[in-house]
Amino acid sequence: MSLLVVGSVAFDTVETPFGKADRVLGGSATFCVLAASYFVQPRLVGIVGADFPAEFLEEFTRRGVDLAGLQVSREGKTFHWSGRYEGDMNAAQTLGVSLNVLGSYKASVPENFRDSEYVFLANDHPQTQIDVLKAVRGQPFAVADTRDFWISEEPKLLEQLLKHLDGLVLNEHEARLLSGHANLVRAGATILGMGPGFVVIKKGEHGALLFSPEGTAAIPACPLAEVRDPTGAGDAFAGGLMGYLASSGKRSLDAVRRGLTYGTVTASVAVEDFSVKPFQTLTRDELNDRHDAFLRAIRF
Amino acid sequence: MSLLVVGSVAFDTVETPFGKADRVLGGSATFCVLAASYFVQPRLVGIVGADFPAEFLEEFTRRGVDLAGLQVSREGKTFHWSGRYEGDMNAAQTLGVSLNVLGSYKASVPENFRDSEYVFLANDHPQTQIDVLKAVRGQPFAVADTRDFWISEEPKLLEQLLKHLDGLVLNEHEARLLSGHANLVRAGATILGMGPGFVVIKKGEHGALLFSPEGTAAIPACPLAEVRDPTGAGDAFAGGLMGYLASSGKRSLDAVRRGLTYGTVTASVAVEDFSVKPFQTLTRDELNDRHDAFLRAIRF
Repeated sequence: MSLLVVGSVAFDTVETPFGKADRVLGGSATFCVLAASYFVQPRLVGIVGADFPAEFLEEFTRRGVDLAGLQVSREGKTFHWSGRYEGDMNAAQTLGVSLNVLGSYKASVPENFRDSEYVFLANDHPQTQIDVLKAVRGQPFAVADTRDFWISEEPKLLEQLLKHLDGLVLNEHEARLLSGHANLVRAGATILGMGPGFVVIKKGEHGALLFSPEGTAAIPACPLAEVRDPTGAGDAFAGGLMGYLASSGKRSLDAVRRGLTYGTVTASVAVEDFSVKPFQTLTRDELNDRHDAFLRAIRF
Repeated sequence: MSLLVVGSVAFDTVETPFGKADRVLGGSATFCVLAASYFVQPRLVGIVGADFPAEFLEEFTRRGVDLAGLQVSREGKTFHWSGRYEGDMNAAQTLGVSLNVLGSYKASVPENFRDSEYVFLANDHPQTQIDVLKAVRGQPFAVADTRDFWISEEPKLLEQLLKHLDGLVLNEHEARLLSGHANLVRAGATILGMGPGFVVIKKGEHGALLFSPEGTAAIPACPLAEVRDPTGAGDAFAGGLMGYLASSGKRSLDAVRRGLTYGTVTASVAVEDFSVKPFQTLTRDELNDRHDAFLRAIRF
């Protein structure tokens, strides 16, 4: 079935203990669709500037991503994020943000994407997320991410969004902020009570927690001997989850659980090198092998 | 089969964001045998002072612990540890250590404990750990813990010990120090190469990693809505693991994996309240229920 992904496409400038990458391909939608592309041909809605190189567009088309919803602004420049990871690399330190074309952009869904059955709303203004969801016909299976800024600045709108979601995927810092609980089990239960069908709290290298009416589940991250650049891990996680769900056509909690194992693996792929490099060479067979190995690693 | 546990029995004075407990029952062997007591009747080797209250002894006998190896010194005082947990409570800040009777004590195994088939050596001088192991007849299944002090001060002896172990259980800080690797997957692989049949790296609330010739496995901690006092979690983890192994009579990696699920659950029990309080009321049925729930929570 069809998967719509709405989010940012960006230039990233990233520094980690393993090196530096300047103006490489990044953005939440980028990592999400590339991860999802191993399962379906995802539809991307976003915007880039006139400075966006054709070779970056090829990264998407090569993996079968439908770019009919990617606006290319003639005047503006592409959104540019700069950040640094230090120590255990569990959190990025943002060094600079140039919104550029993102500043005045409001995501809108092209007519031929409005029949999407699965929708992932990457971090954005909750009003935009609500509007995008309304633009999709029928009852799409909708999962969203958010971030600290919207939790603090637009709590009412975020509350409204949560009532319309099948799932919310957020990191531990955001979960604590949104729920007011330091303990993640309480945080997850509280957020679940706000409306979404399930809640996933991402803990980076420590895996993730799943909250649903069936109870709480815990999944470790893939044990990795090397993490070179954690950028995009969370979005690749969402991409693996949503890609699997869309390809299965299922919406059950069992399917979400299975999707989380794929999301964990696509996240582990994303962090092995800078930018989208790991997705340039990974085949579907290799992804399956890694998934099999991961299932063996967590079978107790 | 029989399980021998060698380690400390102590007074603990503990402060956490949830309260304070003064001169309560603690020690590595204490938490280990109480956790193991749900599976076998563990044999304890250790020492306490004349100030050790009879009611504390009852905590052991009530749970079927064999105290024939517990020396009671007429002159000395019981080992006393004071510490504090703050913030996410993942690491204790030691405020005071009075070795007391532990200062001149060298663990020795009574004759009737020398046929033990399973042995857990809690943190101690590696020479003592080696001597204890030698004192046990036959080929006991031996698992040890250690700590940063011995890794720094007695690396040669520790190396020697590792060659005689079926398993080593240590926390992430210790694993990094012992291996020289910040990445835990590299750390575990390096320590595995030092001799033990398997290595478990404990990550507190983030679960544990298992390294063996079969590869790396990852197990999450039990998702808990409240952690009041993390003291003893690691020793209760080892106790659940060793208790299960001894009760099963198995030594296979599959049995170790199953043992880790029990260790995770007994650790989760230990942290729910101060000192050994949670073990005063927990029944074997309740432990089984929690174990079943945990298996459901990690089945993906």
